[in-house]
Amino acid sequence: MNGKGILTVVSGFSGSGKGTLMKELLARYPDAYALSVSATTRQPRPGEEDGREYFFVSKDEFEKMIAKGELIEYAKYVENYYGTPKKYVEEKLSEGKDVILEIEIQGALKVKEAFPDTLLLFVTPPSAAELEKRLVGRGTETMDVIRSRMNRACEEAEGMDRYDYLIVNDELDRCVEEMHDIIRGEHKRSFRNEEFMKNIKEDLERMKGEE
Amino acid sequence: MNGKGILTVVSGFSGSGKGTLMKELLARYPDAYALSVSATTRQPRPGEEDGREYFFVSKDEFEKMIAKGELIEYAKYVENYYGTPKKYVEEKLSEGKDVILEIEIQGALKVKEAFPDTLLLFVTPPSAAELEKRLVGRGTETMDVIRSRMNRACEEAEGMDRYDYLIVNDELDRCVEEMHDIIRGEHKRSFRNEEFMKNIKEDLERMKGEE
Repeated sequence: MNGKGILTVVSGFSGSGKGTLMKELLARYPDAYALSVSATTRQPRPGEEDGREYFFVSKDEFEKMIAKGELIEYAKYVENYYGTPKKYVEEKLSEGKDVILEIEIQGALKVKEAFPDTLLLFVTPPSAAELEKRLVGRGTETMDVIRSRMNRACEEAEGMDRYDYLIVNDELDRCVEEMHDIIRGEHKRSFRNEEFMKNIKEDLERMKGEE
Repeated sequence: MNGKGILTVVSGFSGSGKGTLMKELLARYPDAYALSVSATTRQPRPGEEDGREYFFVSKDEFEKMIAKGELIEYAKYVENYYGTPKKYVEEKLSEGKDVILEIEIQGALKVKEAFPDTLLLFVTPPSAAELEKRLVGRGTETMDVIRSRMNRACEEAEGMDRYDYLIVNDELDRCVEEMHDIIRGEHKRSFRNEEFMKNIKEDLERMKGEE
């Protein structure tokens, strides 16, 4: 069947544990996945390496990448650009790796629009009660922190329906396997295997002709 | 999340081994699945039991079922009716079992139209060459048999694109697990979990109000 990787965007509630989840997925199946590396104009922090945490570029270089259409999506936060270079993603996809991209909902929907085959996964705690617990914290947070988390969660929840799957993060170990199974399963979707279907149809027609 | 079962229609090329596949799936996961039992007006054969192989009904009873809308789909072959009773399927779905329905493509598409949440799986040999081998047989078949198989396969191939997933049946053991993973994965689709999403959104709004 189709050996090409799937571009997989992971979003989710803050505190859903999606970072840990993806790290574990990549650690368990290093041959199956590649984590997309973003480009940014912000300064590297101590310990960060170019090409590992980020591709560090100048503002000028970044704006040239925008102009040349070399970014799948990008956004600007606090005077710094962040974006997803197309080249790296396409290389990994054609190597047959599923490329994992962690971005928030606005970016996710932009990616899906540009690449309709993108798989959108949304990571959520198992219940509203559990989400509430994580948002409110242990009673040591200020009202401002809680209010800001709540507003953010409301925004995040608004887009859940547009994702293909919900990944319920109750127990890390089970959840990693679930995510892996879902992505593997997606490889079997018929719309991802048009060449396979075309070959079978053509061979059948050919055989009919040879009769 | 949503505890309701998924109506799963399995079709595939003749000789794709889908019968064996489903039998093995049900044997391995008897709590997860139920096989839909068809109603028919044909006479039971020796060893067949009412409610196991088929629900055996009279022509009159069958036509009443049609008139009352009690069948998900039906067809007539050689003077006998065959159809899928809605009641049995709905009972099993609400028990949380995924109901497996083996029917050919025309029926499959009718089911999907009536119940858009239906999952359509298409079982296929791993390659066109392998399909050819199975269709032509070991050289002991008459030309008529091969021609009839080929025509049938061409018809079956025509509809592949309309199925959600392709199940490549190369090795039974692996293939059963793959089918199981795909169906389990489908339970996590966001459109199958609208109540879960609705609850989370409502709770977040409520919390906002309580601030």
